[in-house]
Amino acid sequence: MPTYITPIKDIMYNLTDVLNIEQYQSFPGFEDATEDLFKAILEESGKLCEEVLLPLNTIGDIEGCTRHKDGSVTTPKGFKEAYKLYCEGGWLGISQDPKYGGQGLPYIVTILLEELLASANMSFNMYPGLTGGAASAINVAGNDKQREKYLPNLHSGKWTGTMCLTEAHCGTDLGLMRSKAELQENGIYKVTGSKIFITGGEHDLTENIIHLVLAKIPGGPEGSKGISLFIVPKIMINDDGSLGEKNGVMCGSIEEKMGIHGASTCVMNFDGATGYLLGAEHDGLKAMFIMMNGARIGVGIQGLAQSEVSYQNAANYARERLQMRSISGTKNPDGPADPIIVHPDIRRMLMDARAFNEGARSLAMWVSLLPNFVKGEVDEKKREEYNDLLGLLTPVMKGYFTDKGYENATNAQQIFGGHGYIKEYGMDQFVRDARIAMIYEGTNGIQALDLVGRKLGANGGRAIQSYFALLTKDIEENEDPTSDEFIKPLKAALGDLQSASIWLLQNATKNPDNAGAASYAYMHLLGLVALGHMWLKMAIKSSKVLKEGSNDPSFHENKLITARYFMKRMLPETSAHLKKVEAGADIMMALKADSF
Amino acid sequence: MPTYITPIKDIMYNLTDVLNIEQYQSFPGFEDATEDLFKAILEESGKLCEEVLLPLNTIGDIEGCTRHKDGSVTTPKGFKEAYKLYCEGGWLGISQDPKYGGQGLPYIVTILLEELLASANMSFNMYPGLTGGAASAINVAGNDKQREKYLPNLHSGKWTGTMCLTEAHCGTDLGLMRSKAELQENGIYKVTGSKIFITGGEHDLTENIIHLVLAKIPGGPEGSKGISLFIVPKIMINDDGSLGEKNGVMCGSIEEKMGIHGASTCVMNFDGATGYLLGAEHDGLKAMFIMMNGARIGVGIQGLAQSEVSYQNAANYARERLQMRSISGTKNPDGPADPIIVHPDIRRMLMDARAFNEGARSLAMWVSLLPNFVKGEVDEKKREEYNDLLGLLTPVMKGYFTDKGYENATNAQQIFGGHGYIKEYGMDQFVRDARIAMIYEGTNGIQALDLVGRKLGANGGRAIQSYFALLTKDIEENEDPTSDEFIKPLKAALGDLQSASIWLLQNATKNPDNAGAASYAYMHLLGLVALGHMWLKMAIKSSKVLKEGSNDPSFHENKLITARYFMKRMLPETSAHLKKVEAGADIMMALKADSF
Repeated sequence: MPTYITPIKDIMYNLTDVLNIEQYQSFPGFEDATEDLFKAILEESGKLCEEVLLPLNTIGDIEGCTRHKDGSVTTPKGFKEAYKLYCEGGWLGISQDPKYGGQGLPYIVTILLEELLASANMSFNMYPGLTGGAASAINVAGNDKQREKYLPNLHSGKWTGTMCLTEAHCGTDLGLMRSKAELQENGIYKVTGSKIFITGGEHDLTENIIHLVLAKIPGGPEGSKGISLFIVPKIMINDDGSLGEKNGVMCGSIEEKMGIHGASTCVMNFDGATGYLLGAEHDGLKAMFIMMNGARIGVGIQGLAQSEVSYQNAANYARERLQMRSISGTKNPDGPADPIIVHPDIRRMLMDARAFNEGARSLAMWVSLLPNFVKGEVDEKKREEYNDLLGLLTPVMKGYFTDKGYENATNAQQIFGGHGYIKEYGMDQFVRDARIAMIYEGTNGIQALDLVGRKLGANGGRAIQSYFALLTKDIEENEDPTSDEFIKPLKAALGDLQSASIWLLQNATKNPDNAGAASYAYMHLLGLVALGHMWLKMAIKSSKVLKEGSNDPSFHENKLITARYFMKRMLPETSAHLKKVEAGADIMMALKADSF
Repeated sequence: MPTYITPIKDIMYNLTDVLNIEQYQSFPGFEDATEDLFKAILEESGKLCEEVLLPLNTIGDIEGCTRHKDGSVTTPKGFKEAYKLYCEGGWLGISQDPKYGGQGLPYIVTILLEELLASANMSFNMYPGLTGGAASAINVAGNDKQREKYLPNLHSGKWTGTMCLTEAHCGTDLGLMRSKAELQENGIYKVTGSKIFITGGEHDLTENIIHLVLAKIPGGPEGSKGISLFIVPKIMINDDGSLGEKNGVMCGSIEEKMGIHGASTCVMNFDGATGYLLGAEHDGLKAMFIMMNGARIGVGIQGLAQSEVSYQNAANYARERLQMRSISGTKNPDGPADPIIVHPDIRRMLMDARAFNEGARSLAMWVSLLPNFVKGEVDEKKREEYNDLLGLLTPVMKGYFTDKGYENATNAQQIFGGHGYIKEYGMDQFVRDARIAMIYEGTNGIQALDLVGRKLGANGGRAIQSYFALLTKDIEENEDPTSDEFIKPLKAALGDLQSASIWLLQNATKNPDNAGAASYAYMHLLGLVALGHMWLKMAIKSSKVLKEGSNDPSFHENKLITARYFMKRMLPETSAHLKKVEAGADIMMALKADSF
C-alpha cells in the first residue's frame, strides 16, 4: 500500500525563503496569512490526506463508483465519511468570499491544498475541486440573488457543483453543441440535451448537486457565440432554501475508465430540466472560461501531485529493495546486495522527478500569487503585467506539469520493476490516474495552441516580453562568478526560448500551421525555462542562507544539489525543443490524410 | 472496437527494395524464402491476426485469466480455439529446425510474425512466444534425447513452454536465488522453490507445459555462478511419449496486473518437482541468456507492434472525428467542422509514430538477418562483426523500441481525447499492454547497462567501431547534393553518438557510475541513430525507384515525406541525449539516499 508524507518543509521553504509571503500582508486576504497560519493549515489538512484520504485511494481504485437502476450513484466505501470530515475542516471554502461563508484566505492556500489532496486521493479531490470551480463561476457571473442562494452551500460542501460542457460529438469544439435551453414564460429555461464525461455528475456525497450547463438558446448566434450558461440544480431549491422536487436531470450511465475510478464520470441527461441563466444570454463561454482557467491550474497541480506521491513511494522502495552491487563498489557489505538507490539509473528517475516536483511546486506557488497581485497592485501597468503572466503560464502549468506527472509516475512505477506492474504495490494507479490530467480541461495539445495561438501573439507579444524582462532582471541581479553554474544554463535556455519566440512571430503569420506545428515543443520549452527560473531563485536563496548560517544546512545543500541536477541534466533539453519549433509545418503537413 | 490491418506493403518494401532478400538464397534456410513465399505467409498469418486474434484482444483484457481452487487456470473465452487455429497454421515452429518438426525458414519470418501477432493480441502471443524461447534453449543447451523428447511438441504447439527465473526477492539479481535442485540417485533432480511473474505458468491451452527453471544445486558456487537450468514438465512424460503422472508443480496464484490480462502471470510453486538438468551443472545462466536474447528482440517488437496498432486506430479516428477548423483555412467546408487530422499537433503525434514504426520495422528486419549472416558468412571477421552488431543492437531494440511503443500508444490515446480514456474505444489497453514491455526481460534500465557496461566496452569497443564504420560507409556511398537533406542530419547524429561513445570510454573507467549515469541517454541516442540509418537506406532507395519510374509512386513519395520528418524533427534529439551523457554521475549521485 502506498504511503504519503505531506511536503510541509518544502512548501514552508517556498513561502518564507523564496516568496517571503509576509511581505504581502497589505494585500486583501493576506492580513492574517502568517507563516504560522500556513503551517497550521498544512499540518491539519496533511493529517486528513495522510491518514484518511490516502488509504481510500486504493479502495476507490478497486471498487469504483456504482450506478443503480434508478440513476443514483454510490461512491466507493469510505468516501462519504471522508467527505464529511473534509467539509468539517472547512477546506472547500478556504479561499472563498467570507460574505458567502468562505474563509477569505489567499488563492495560494487553495493551490497548496490541491497538491496535498490530489497526491493523497486524486479521485476524491475531484468532487470538491469541481465544486470550487462552479462556485467561482457563480461568484463572477451570477447576480447577488444567485450568489446568496448557491454559494454558502457550495463553500461549505453541503452541495457539490459540476461543469457540463462536453457532448458526444463536441469536446474541444463547443460551437457544435446541440443542448438547448428554451425560455419559459416565467423567465426560467427548460434545458434539454445529453452531456458526457461529467465528473461528479451524480454521487451520494451530498443531498444536492448544482450543475452548470452550457446550452444554446434557440434563435441565438451560430457556433460558439450562441452558447449560454445555466444553473441546473439536481433538486429544486425552495425560496426558504429547503429542497423541493427533483429536477429533470438524470445520470444515464457512468463511464468505465482507465483510472480515477473513485470519481464518478457520468453521462447526464437533461430532459426539460429547469435552468436559470447565469450571466448574459449567449455569453456562457466567458463564464465557463473563468471556471476553466482556475481548473487548468488545478489540473496542472494534479500532475505535480501524482509525480510527488509516486516519487515518494519509489524513493522508499529504492532504499529498501536489495538487488545487485553498485558498479562503483559495494555499498551495503553486510547485506546480500545493495539497495537499488545506489544504481545511477535508478537515481536518474528519482532525481528527474525530484527536480521537477520542487521546481513545479515553487512555480505553482508563485503563479498562484499572481491573481492577488493583479487585484492588489496599485500600478496599472504592473497589474496588466501580472495578468499577462498568469495568462501565459496557465496553459504551461496545465500542459507541461501533467506531461511530466505522467512521465514521472511511469518512472516511479519502473523503479519497482515487475512489482510496479502488479496491483499489489499500487504504483500503476498513479500512472493511470495521472494519465487523465493530460486530457481533460482541454487536452495538452489545446493548451499548447492556447499558449502559442492566443497568449503569445496577443497585444504584440506583450506577455512574453514581460516574462523575458523578468527573467533577464533576475539573471542580471544574480550574475556573479559563484552562481555561474545556475546562471549560465538558464541564460542558454532563455536564449532558446527567445529564438523560438522570434521564429514563431516571424513564421506563424506566413503560415498559421507553423504555430500549430511548433506549439507543443514551445510549451515544453517554456515549461523548462519557467522551472529554471524558480530553480535559480531557490539556488540563490539557499546559497545565501548557507553563507549566513542555517540551523538546517542539509536542507539547503540538498536544494543546491537538486538545482545543479536540474540545470545540467534537464534544462538543456530546451535546445531539442527549439529545433522542433524551427522544423516548421511543411514536413508535418505533407502527407495526405488518407496516406496515414 | 479497435481495428488492425497487417502492414504487408511496408514489410514487402523492406524485404525487396531495402534488404533485397533474394540475394541471400545461398544461405541455409533462405533457399525457398522467395518474395512470393513471404507474401503468402504474411497474408495467411495476417488473416488470423485481423479476423481472429484482434477481436479476442479486447475480450482478453476485460475477462482476464481465472485461477480455480485446484490450481488450474482458464484463459479468456476464445483463446483456446484461436490457439488451435494458430497451431494448425504451423506458425510456432516456422523458423525452427525441420529435424524436430520445424519449418526451417529464416529467423526474420518469426520476427515478422511477432509484430503481426503482438499488434493483434499481445497477451495471446505470449503463450507461443515463451514456447519458442524455451524450445530455443532446449535446442542449444540440451542433448539429442532432450531435443527429441521436447522439441517436436513445442514446435507444433502441442505443449507450451515457460521461463522460470524470478523470485520475490530476486529479479535482476539472480545470484540471490533460493530455489534449489537436489540430485536424486537416478540422475534426476528434485526442484523446490517459488517463482513469480511466470507468463503462461498455467493455462488451459495445452495438455502439458514444459517449465525451464533456474535453481541452485546445493554445494555449488555462490551467487550467479551456481545457478543451473532444469526442464520441469507439468505432467511427466512416459518413454513412449504419452503423458504420465502430475509433477510436483502448481500455480499458487495469478497476478492482478495493469495490463496483458489475457496472459496468465503465475506464482509457480515447485515442491520436490522432478527436473532434468539442461546443459551443464552451474551453467544455467548461459542457456537462459540464449533464450533471453531472442526474447529481448521479441519484446522490442512488442513495442513496435503496440505503436503500430495504436497508430492505425488513431489515424482512422483523426480522419473521422470532426472538431474545429484548420487554422490555415477550412478544409471540409461541407461538414460542421474539419477532421482533426488537419491540425498540426494531431499530425505531430501521428507522424512521430509513423516515422518510428517504419524505421523500427526496417531496423528489426535487418537485425533479424544478423544471426543468419553470423552462420552463413564465410569470412570469420565478417561473422564476428555481425555477431557484435547483433549484441550491440539487441538491448537498443528492447529498450528504445518499448519506450517509444509506450510513448506512441499514449499519444494515440491522446488523439482520442476523453474518448481515449474510457474503455469504449479500447485505446487505453494499448497503453497498459505496452507498459509491461519496458519492464520484463530485464527492465529498460538493465538494457541500457547491458549496452554501456557490456556491449560497448567489450573487446576494446570493437562492436561500436564496426557500427561506426558501417554507418560511415553508408553515408559516404550516398553523399551527393540531392541527398543532403538525409545525409546531413544523420552525419550530425552520428557525430553526437561518436562524442558520447568517446566520453564514455574516457570517463567510465575513471568512475564506473559515469557509465550508469549516461546509459539511458546513450541507449536512446543509439536508437535514434540506428533508425536514422534505416531511414537513409529507405530514402535513398525510394528516391532511386521514383527516378527510375514506379507503378506505385505515392508509396515512395510517402517514404520520402516520412524520412524528411524523421531527419528534421526526431533525429536532432540526439544532441539533448549527448548533453545528458556528458553531464556525468556526480550531480546524480550527490544526494544522500535518506535525503530522497
